Amino acid sequence: MVGSILVAFFEPVAAGSGIPQIKCYLNGVKIPRVVRLKTLVVKVCGVICSVVGGLAVGKEGPMIHSGAVVAAGVSQGRSTTLKKDLMIFEYFRRDTEKRDFVSAGAAAGVSAAFGAPVGGVLFSLEEGASFWNQMLTWRIFFASMISTFTLNFFLSIYHNNTGDLSNPGLINFGRFESENLNYNLYEIPLFIAMGAIGGFLGALFNVLNYWLTIFRIRYVHRPCLQVMEAMLVAAVTATVSFTMIYFSNDCQPLDSEHAEEYPLQLFCADGEYNSMATAFFNTPERSVRSLFHNQPGTYNPLTLGLFTLTYFFLACWTYGLAVSAGVFIPSLLIGAAWGRLCGIWLASIASAGSIWADPGKYALIGAAAQLGGIVRMTLSLTVILVEATGNVTYGLPIMLVLLTAKIVGDYFQEGLYDIHIKLQSVPFLHWEAPATSHWLTAREVMSSPVTCLNRIEKVGTIVDVLSNTSTNHNGFPVVMQVSENDEPAKLCGLILRSQLIVLLKHKVFVELAGSRLTRRKLQLKDFRDAYPRFPPIQSIHVSQDERECLMDLTEFMNPTPYTVPQETSLPRVFKLFRALGLRHLVVVDDANTRVIGLVTRKDLARYHLGKHGLEELHLAQT
Amino acid sequence: MVGSILVAFFEPVAAGSGIPQIKCYLNGVKIPRVVRLKTLVVKVCGVICSVVGGLAVGKEGPMIHSGAVVAAGVSQGRSTTLKKDLMIFEYFRRDTEKRDFVSAGAAAGVSAAFGAPVGGVLFSLEEGASFWNQMLTWRIFFASMISTFTLNFFLSIYHNNTGDLSNPGLINFGRFESENLNYNLYEIPLFIAMGAIGGFLGALFNVLNYWLTIFRIRYVHRPCLQVMEAMLVAAVTATVSFTMIYFSNDCQPLDSEHAEEYPLQLFCADGEYNSMATAFFNTPERSVRSLFHNQPGTYNPLTLGLFTLTYFFLACWTYGLAVSAGVFIPSLLIGAAWGRLCGIWLASIASAGSIWADPGKYALIGAAAQLGGIVRMTLSLTVILVEATGNVTYGLPIMLVLLTAKIVGDYFQEGLYDIHIKLQSVPFLHWEAPATSHWLTAREVMSSPVTCLNRIEKVGTIVDVLSNTSTNHNGFPVVMQVSENDEPAKLCGLILRSQLIVLLKHKVFVELAGSRLTRRKLQLKDFRDAYPRFPPIQSIHVSQDERECLMDLTEFMNPTPYTVPQETSLPRVFKLFRALGLRHLVVVDDANTRVIGLVTRKDLARYHLGKHGLEELHLAQT
Repeated sequence: MVGSILVAFFEPVAAGSGIPQIKCYLNGVKIPRVVRLKTLVVKVCGVICSVVGGLAVGKEGPMIHSGAVVAAGVSQGRSTTLKKDLMIFEYFRRDTEKRDFVSAGAAAGVSAAFGAPVGGVLFSLEEGASFWNQMLTWRIFFASMISTFTLNFFLSIYHNNTGDLSNPGLINFGRFESENLNYNLYEIPLFIAMGAIGGFLGALFNVLNYWLTIFRIRYVHRPCLQVMEAMLVAAVTATVSFTMIYFSNDCQPLDSEHAEEYPLQLFCADGEYNSMATAFFNTPERSVRSLFHNQPGTYNPLTLGLFTLTYFFLACWTYGLAVSAGVFIPSLLIGAAWGRLCGIWLASIASAGSIWADPGKYALIGAAAQLGGIVRMTLSLTVILVEATGNVTYGLPIMLVLLTAKIVGDYFQEGLYDIHIKLQSVPFLHWEAPATSHWLTAREVMSSPVTCLNRIEKVGTIVDVLSNTSTNHNGFPVVMQVSENDEPAKLCGLILRSQLIVLLKHKVFVELAGSRLTRRKLQLKDFRDAYPRFPPIQSIHVSQDERECLMDLTEFMNPTPYTVPQETSLPRVFKLFRALGLRHLVVVDDANTRVIGLVTRKDLARYHLGKHGLEELHLAQT
Repeated sequence: MVGSILVAFFEPVAAGSGIPQIKCYLNGVKIPRVVRLKTLVVKVCGVICSVVGGLAVGKEGPMIHSGAVVAAGVSQGRSTTLKKDLMIFEYFRRDTEKRDFVSAGAAAGVSAAFGAPVGGVLFSLEEGASFWNQMLTWRIFFASMISTFTLNFFLSIYHNNTGDLSNPGLINFGRFESENLNYNLYEIPLFIAMGAIGGFLGALFNVLNYWLTIFRIRYVHRPCLQVMEAMLVAAVTATVSFTMIYFSNDCQPLDSEHAEEYPLQLFCADGEYNSMATAFFNTPERSVRSLFHNQPGTYNPLTLGLFTLTYFFLACWTYGLAVSAGVFIPSLLIGAAWGRLCGIWLASIASAGSIWADPGKYALIGAAAQLGGIVRMTLSLTVILVEATGNVTYGLPIMLVLLTAKIVGDYFQEGLYDIHIKLQSVPFLHWEAPATSHWLTAREVMSSPVTCLNRIEKVGTIVDVLSNTSTNHNGFPVVMQVSENDEPAKLCGLILRSQLIVLLKHKVFVELAGSRLTRRKLQLKDFRDAYPRFPPIQSIHVSQDERECLMDLTEFMNPTPYTVPQETSLPRVFKLFRALGLRHLVVVDDANTRVIGLVTRKDLARYHLGKHGLEELHLAQT
């Protein structure tokens, strides 16, 4: 209740794992409040409440989001929430620089969560960055390493072994070192089959979650309803768990050597512990570990089957609630449970002592398959799992399993994060233009007519343009004097909405006479100080006299904006946007001089390859 | 002798490690014959000869080069050397596609050599790719994994354990699992100091090798001289090794438990083995492994000191000889030797049983420092070393050491591969434009005047332009009819030299009358078949009559080439080249229509940040 009240009433953007939001942010979509201090506080408190409350959630996604917020905050050297400006790092007060920091922060979050510094770097690259820059990658890697290092240092103090830095990450699935955990060529087809099962189950999870999310968007949008739903889920989770444990007969002997750290007797006889309780009443991380590493025979197949079934639906219902909660660990847990079940089944049909004797290996493969089927990451997930299990030799099977899960899953439904991004209707740019978009040209995609400004423009006109809600572009082409007839004007630059706002705020006007230049000298610092929350145009008061003044945009505009001729194909425009990180691209006529339109991210993100060929999406007007 | 004869007389491009050549290839520089079958054969035979001949060389660089050649060959589905065309994969007969394959091949090479699939991917990205594309990365990773898998499968047969795929890579430095190999916070400054030593020694190595290479370029350029030098080095290496072993008194007891696999008694008493011989007469890989893992006390400090000194100079002299040979393992060996020396010294001043008791850990750090100081790779090398030692916990110290080594080394001299690339005077584009190049504009950088072709051009003119050795550009702007006065013409496209050659070869001419269109229909396949060895213009015979014909370039040219205005700054031009993988960029006037110049890779690579600010390099006219 506390966790969902925090999220629903104070900061709705802190709901869920935060990975879709960070993905959007790194892609260049501006989601309000996603990297604010308040979000961080709500996220951290919220995830503690969710995990302690016993929901079927993990804390990894929120850790990644938290890392990103910390990085964004540190890089700016100030906090608007705390109204404090340390006057440092002013150089970083720009979108591109801040985005680099956020990607490093996300990587550091992965690194701390899974003890996977390389996996963190690849996560940032796979999910975020579009331009591979060696220096940026190196910096991200450095941040990841320092994150692991700091974590290890504090863990060493916690474990009363101060200064020993050889600890693994925060979540550790234990090393696979046993001799009979080796795998053989003959097992590869089995692994691939498990990958296919994982892909199918993952797609099922995503479809169910998609319907649920649609339902929530329609009917559960009031904060108090959201809190009530979260409480209902928590109550059902607890009830179902206890019922399962009560009716379970899976009592295992309390053997001193292989016992759990905290075995739960519950409804079992003395000297025994309840195996179902081990799965349900541990933290999900510990349950995964015990499924990976417990001796053969410590779990009853029936227990595992029932556990998989209930936990699958619980996790599916839980994701998307108004609580801070990740989906990584629940997915791994579901997969580990049915994977171990497969392992037990294989061991029962094979001779004892064979390579199939240990079900822990299959639990790992199942976990990878289920997680891959849900989130559809491949490269970074392989490396994260390899690093978290501390074993490089499982790299190949994990990779094959993730690839199979992705292919099978994509056949049915998109990945969970992509579903949630799409439901938010944001202009998210994928890696490549839709396959059949070659016949589309810039002319068909662009917004036109486009509002242009003159180099010397009347203040009143600028205020009107900025106030006009129908022209909500963030960039305006600057042109030579527009002629009286309808002919488009010659392009000479591009100016951003934020720049115009700062110019208006500082009243950088030229008197109509043009002789008395009373304007203040504006510096780069003025633009940086205003970043990232430029005031809305309504808050800037311009008197009637001032409306008659002129503004000279020449020295503030970008004099060489990127342009394309109108016949350029969509894939080419797409490539320019992705490779150069553009937000606006001016479309010019065949003579290469006159503005005829403007392509923005939203124009590109509209096109999407659906079941009936290329479809246009309706994107929210944010 | 055999190895150097092969290289010097048959395929000089197979000399050295091949990594600088692959780096250039992936950067977009065309080095003749670098990915041919003949090169592969010479490289493989050559490296076997070099290693068997006892030179101070490794076989890892050649493996990476071999992987790249195999990938390039497979992707084309034909071999010119064998005069066989399988008529498959014709889609890949383009520069960009082939380059993707080569980067995957290099990654597979790293993966096989070090058992480091992730390290291989990062190697390819760090050294090669400029545009991070998720699909490409995933394909490279897949290739790397399959390479490890195949290697493991064959190793399992070799080890009589068919089908067990849990083997490590081909070169394995053994797992660091002993308890006292953990590291502590207090050791971090020591590691950093060792990194600084490594950086300094690496820079010394590079400076000596640079002088040596200059000397070789001036005086040792005849093949027979090169063979004689290689034989001299081999003779000196053998003599020095034997002398060192003869005068060494480092005899260790043949203890049954910790003995070497093949201990050499040589000049020691019965029941003892010669420690110096262990270092000199094993393969370098096994020596590294024994320096990492042998018990404390198995090496005498004097032995290690002398070994470091001699091996340093031998390796330095060897690199750059006309033999196929890598520098990875010799660097690791030098570093492991002085690192272990540091470890022994630390253990002697610390109390017994402390965390400093095992010198193997310092051998690893020293090896990383020395290799980092020589080659200056960071991200990929960290991951390769982590994967090759199978231990993630050493990630942080290795990263810090490599970073320190790079910073210290860069202060004195560039990395070894960059030195060799620079000595080849190729137009290699670094990651970013030189720092002080902001005041340079496209107009100052571009080649001008540029040879333009008309849309309908006379065959004679085209042949003359292509034959003219002073205009050796590979791309020509196509313009509207050049007017009689000197005014530049309006741009309408760009055509490549290779396209013109194919057009001339197939005689795609329009009769002067223009009425009888006798030209053959040219298909994409004709261009692909000619790739990559377009015949030189001299081999195409054009009769005097044909010279008077016309060619219509309109349907073959690229109608929307990338252009920049002449005032664009150099860093921006640079960014376009790197992000979009351009080879030619047309510079237009302020009206955005008329061609005034052409920027090529060579124009950009000329500028270089030297000791006295921005310097211009003289690049070879290749």
